Amino acid sequence: MNSYGRVFRISTFGESHGKAIGVVVDGCPAGLELDLAFIQHELARRKPGQSAITTQRKETDEVEILSGVFEGKTLGTPIAMLIWNEDAKSKDYSHLADVFRPSHADYTYQAKYGIRDYRGGGRSSARETAARVAAGAIAKQVLQKIGVKIWAYTSQIGKLSLEKNYQELDFSLIEQNEVRCPEPALAQAMVEYIKEIRKEGDTVGGVVSCVIQNVPVGLGEPVFDKLHAELGKAMLSINAVKGFEYGSGFEGAKMRGSQHNDIFYTDESGKIRTKTNFSGGIQGGISNGEDIFFRVAFKPVATLMQSVKTINEKGEPTTIQGKGRHDPCVVPRAVPIVEAMAALVLVDFYLISQISQKIK
Amino acid sequence: MNSYGRVFRISTFGESHGKAIGVVVDGCPAGLELDLAFIQHELARRKPGQSAITTQRKETDEVEILSGVFEGKTLGTPIAMLIWNEDAKSKDYSHLADVFRPSHADYTYQAKYGIRDYRGGGRSSARETAARVAAGAIAKQVLQKIGVKIWAYTSQIGKLSLEKNYQELDFSLIEQNEVRCPEPALAQAMVEYIKEIRKEGDTVGGVVSCVIQNVPVGLGEPVFDKLHAELGKAMLSINAVKGFEYGSGFEGAKMRGSQHNDIFYTDESGKIRTKTNFSGGIQGGISNGEDIFFRVAFKPVATLMQSVKTINEKGEPTTIQGKGRHDPCVVPRAVPIVEAMAALVLVDFYLISQISQKIK
Amino acid sequence: MNSYGRVFRISTFGESHGKAIGVVVDGCPAGLELDLAFIQHELARRKPGQSAITTQRKETDEVEILSGVFEGKTLGTPIAMLIWNEDAKSKDYSHLADVFRPSHADYTYQAKYGIRDYRGGGRSSARETAARVAAGAIAKQVLQKIGVKIWAYTSQIGKLSLEKNYQELDFSLIEQNEVRCPEPALAQAMVEYIKEIRKEGDTVGGVVSCVIQNVPVGLGEPVFDKLHAELGKAMLSINAVKGFEYGSGFEGAKMRGSQHNDIFYTDESGKIRTKTNFSGGIQGGISNGEDIFFRVAFKPVATLMQSVKTINEKGEPTTIQGKGRHDPCVVPRAVPIVEAMAALVLVDFYLISQISQKIK
Amino acid sequence: MNSYGRVFRISTFGESHGKAIGVVVDGCPAGLELDLAFIQHELARRKPGQSAITTQRKETDEVEILSGVFEGKTLGTPIAMLIWNEDAKSKDYSHLADVFRPSHADYTYQAKYGIRDYRGGGRSSARETAARVAAGAIAKQVLQKIGVKIWAYTSQIGKLSLEKNYQELDFSLIEQNEVRCPEPALAQAMVEYIKEIRKEGDTVGGVVSCVIQNVPVGLGEPVFDKLHAELGKAMLSINAVKGFEYGSGFEGAKMRGSQHNDIFYTDESGKIRTKTNFSGGIQGGISNGEDIFFRVAFKPVATLMQSVKTINEKGEPTTIQGKGRHDPCVVPRAVPIVEAMAALVLVDFYLISQISQKIK
Repeated sequence: MNSYGRVFRISTFGESHGKAIGVVVDGCPAGLELDLAFIQHELARRKPGQSAITTQRKETDEVEILSGVFEGKTLGTPIAMLIWNEDAKSKDYSHLADVFRPSHADYTYQAKYGIRDYRGGGRSSARETAARVAAGAIAKQVLQKIGVKIWAYTSQIGKLSLEKNYQELDFSLIEQNEVRCPEPALAQAMVEYIKEIRKEGDTVGGVVSCVIQNVPVGLGEPVFDKLHAELGKAMLSINAVKGFEYGSGFEGAKMRGSQHNDIFYTDESGKIRTKTNFSGGIQGGISNGEDIFFRVAFKPVATLMQSVKTINEKGEPTTIQGKGRHDPCVVPRAVPIVEAMAALVLVDFYLISQISQKIK
Repeated sequence: MNSYGRVFRISTFGESHGKAIGVVVDGCPAGLELDLAFIQHELARRKPGQSAITTQRKETDEVEILSGVFEGKTLGTPIAMLIWNEDAKSKDYSHLADVFRPSHADYTYQAKYGIRDYRGGGRSSARETAARVAAGAIAKQVLQKIGVKIWAYTSQIGKLSLEKNYQELDFSLIEQNEVRCPEPALAQAMVEYIKEIRKEGDTVGGVVSCVIQNVPVGLGEPVFDKLHAELGKAMLSINAVKGFEYGSGFEGAKMRGSQHNDIFYTDESGKIRTKTNFSGGIQGGISNGEDIFFRVAFKPVATLMQSVKTINEKGEPTTIQGKGRHDPCVVPRAVPIVEAMAALVLVDFYLISQISQKIK
Repeated sequence: MNSYGRVFRISTFGESHGKAIGVVVDGCPAGLELDLAFIQHELARRKPGQSAITTQRKETDEVEILSGVFEGKTLGTPIAMLIWNEDAKSKDYSHLADVFRPSHADYTYQAKYGIRDYRGGGRSSARETAARVAAGAIAKQVLQKIGVKIWAYTSQIGKLSLEKNYQELDFSLIEQNEVRCPEPALAQAMVEYIKEIRKEGDTVGGVVSCVIQNVPVGLGEPVFDKLHAELGKAMLSINAVKGFEYGSGFEGAKMRGSQHNDIFYTDESGKIRTKTNFSGGIQGGISNGEDIFFRVAFKPVATLMQSVKTINEKGEPTTIQGKGRHDPCVVPRAVPIVEAMAALVLVDFYLISQISQKIK
Repeated sequence: MNSYGRVFRISTFGESHGKAIGVVVDGCPAGLELDLAFIQHELARRKPGQSAITTQRKETDEVEILSGVFEGKTLGTPIAMLIWNEDAKSKDYSHLADVFRPSHADYTYQAKYGIRDYRGGGRSSARETAARVAAGAIAKQVLQKIGVKIWAYTSQIGKLSLEKNYQELDFSLIEQNEVRCPEPALAQAMVEYIKEIRKEGDTVGGVVSCVIQNVPVGLGEPVFDKLHAELGKAMLSINAVKGFEYGSGFEGAKMRGSQHNDIFYTDESGKIRTKTNFSGGIQGGISNGEDIFFRVAFKPVATLMQSVKTINEKGEPTTIQGKGRHDPCVVPRAVPIVEAMAALVLVDFYLISQISQKIK
């Protein structure tokens, strides 16, 4: 289904080159003074054409709110948000009407549904994520009330990798460069690398890291709906994602228990803390009050500005020539998407945690 | 909630040292001749005390079916399965009644619920996974009807890592050694390493890889419920898991699109295939008929047979001495758990795929 | 939540006097040639101002489809439908900004959310049901493929009641009169009665009956999701509904088992049938192939064109004077709403029934 | 699915003559001191053989708790409860192995699943409701903490009907007679009538009414999950139920708005109240703080102690002779079942209402 969340629940709709895309946000608490400019600001961070290293598709991505808000405040009823598709040059895609592009969803959608909107990938296009970012911007506003802060950043482009621990980074630098990496020198190298890749008509993958601060203790549920399991699902649902790890992640598999265990202590304010954070802020699927930390791997964009061999719907070999406007690397634009999905997961568990788990 | 799945839905219950653990399987198709011996066989693969490198806790783990089966066949009604807890030496745990063990769920459960069953971790114990394995054994029997095969194996223990591609492995060797690694020489090294680790009272992590063969094209759903997103959630919900990647995974983040794209071709039988499988059998969240391939990272077991510093419920420093019977490495026993969760995800999407997605 | 259905799932949004109302339909099978004129036709049956006995609020209620349809066919992706609010004379409602109208949802919404859109009832307005009718019109098109027919009709207005069994009625007469009663003489009396009631500034309740023909055997699920339980919930969710009964209903409570039991027989075509249908087409919560029959009670409209005593938000006594345009009786306009909800329930269970309940 | 509830969620399992029936209660708040005797007491109110007017099937219906409770308190984890089937005289049912009993679920289950446990109706037996009563007894204990009281009673047997308004009744008399009617003289007549019916080998239907006191304002959700819609679904899911009405119900359909509107006033304590309660304590789907009042119609039991004509699985005519032990009227035993389902609906909405609907 095209919905996500249990009590703060979003339902997205829309194809890349249809009339509009949008989202209905159900379960947002009433009485929130909604900051529309902030929603628009978050969409601008995701939108195409924002810098020299992104696709030049031009979308103003202006959001229109149709319901759920009255005199500036949320009503507790569903908030429907629309983004009209403007720059949908459908002609660009006519050559793809009966072709399956490699490593895209063309073949699987056709096999599953017997029909697809071939224009720009239709529903499988990453354009859908604009709806998530709009919804995430509302989730962030709810989380702001309890002080939760979410920082995502680019930590790897191809083999260029940020080696520092997140604790050593200055998150205020993230938005200072086109690639959204808080380490300026590395950011510069990443930008150069992406430009080079683009010249060759090629693409490259990377990693987005994310830190969530001031998370209340107790979010997440035992067994199947562990906090990190939901974060993992949410991240893996973003287009082009190939992997998710939290805390020590895959490196943790190499470690010994005596190294990996996070030793508890009581800090001067009496708060229970851990000395290290290999747990990534989550123990037994439940937040422990430390920073939540996770990493998300993105594959290289499948659309190349090169001539590519493939097959058509009849299974016959054919060749497609990349045209249109595409990103050589989605990672910088994925940063606000990762944040949006993190906000949606957190706000849902936060609201669920208000259900009295302890009888007075 | 303690349930998983949309139409083939399991609900597990039980604490590690309570009367029993169990699972209710709802949505299993009627008329299936249920092979009880197979369920018991799968439980034996997971159960403690099965070899020299696992915990010596002794549980016969005999499953009792209470409902949903009549004259050997499933009725289409809920199948309730019970496993009584026998060897629950609660005395072993009394010293933990008011202590928070590091990197366990003691603190977060206490903070969330204001109460916990401290005996062996209570609900947060990996003993809960026996219920998943029993349910997964039913899921496997449904999947067998359509030829789906699931092979999980140990691909890494600490830094000892299997470098071959899954295509080069002989899966019939997996169960030939205690560590469940299909590469005999490496398996031997892993066993030695685990024994060494145990001698030191320490523990170690590792990686389980999983291959699913003969998957029908079209399983999985667009946007939020992508097949790999659900696989990721299911795997991340297993105790001690820190990461999930599928297809090219985190390595894919380093690649270029021109390397990573899986080129389509039509094989001699007319079937659409891809030459490489960096997609891991899933494109746009939907299975494409190639093998599904993913990897799951496990942290080292948190319980050490050493003296460990921690705090008690009042936040005061204290020391605990590991005792009882624990695994130096959960990875070999996690192999059937990974398979069970994979089976539960697949059977759910398989049954959902029977809903006509195409109007005739 | 503002969603209904398990696999054919609708999510509605919008306030009576906001920008628009709408619905997202998720889970509609792909490849359906969507008949937009039919959707519009169904909306016309529900819309205000359609006859002399309904409110004179003028809404063209033109539906705009934003997604999920490509070249006239459904894609299997969410179908978003919008109806812009045109004739939203908000000035009519300013006098209600801080008043709680009796037997409306003003007080309960204010108490629950601390805020409400007081214009025309906001989200609690029956205007929301236009979204259901639009979605139901799609459900009907899916059901048409398998021959299912849904006939709702007015069977009671105030004390004027249709005494015939549904089997004796000619459903082709339903749309022949303003009140949608298939018994012309009674229909005439009902119209006269409503006009009289309106003159007095008063309102009146009534009953809608519904018959569903050609239902496949086997729809519905045991225990909680019985077919009639879902029909009941769906009907009770319609504004102003006070009761639901199916088959023999409340009359059945007076009967003896020897009268009430529906005796089975095999008809000439070999089909298993029942001689009577006190079961209303459903046994053990599952359709048995006979006509489904149920009745839905509607209370009189709460808004009177009279002076009415009530209180304001401070709890102080006050008086409101009915103005604006209101229905003296919602029952005739409720007929297509009952049909729409019935279609949504049926299509959901129909699609679920495609999941193999029997292993081959 | 065999589950009910969104956050206080129960999953029942078990066939009438299988090993056991049971229920898993998920989402019960932690820290509740569970009163087992009360659970047993509620089961005794439902169990067969409790009086001269019920079936003589003997079940001790002793409940065994397997999980979720530690040192007498709930853990916040799933509470699994088992009731072993003792008096399952399967021989009584062998003559029904290939026969479809009229107005039972035999035919529909067979058609849907291709298999059924024919012993005592299998899963479709009202024995399943014992699991609901056990779960409802926990729900009642949670509701007790906030003062909610639920009173169900027999208000009609056949044509013998209690004409008084619920406000005029003394609920303490309900349990004073076998038929659970708070009007002693009528109760006596009902008991006589049931005995007479039984002598004829016949059965009779009736109505259970229910009043819920001290309900907080604000329970229930707009649009689809209205409080009365969920109550309706819950009641209609009980075996043999044919109708549900709340507040004015079907009588309300005959009324005028000027009679039916519940006029608001502020009582001496400053609480907002209504002078009448045709709304049945629910307005716009949300509780308004008045008593919730509803009525549930039960059909006569389908199993007669008479010779009955029917067909077998081949569709051939046959005759069955009622034997075994059956209730001439289920209504008295349905009283605690109605209460249990009401408690389950209320506790679910109560817990959901703790999610902040208003931003501070």
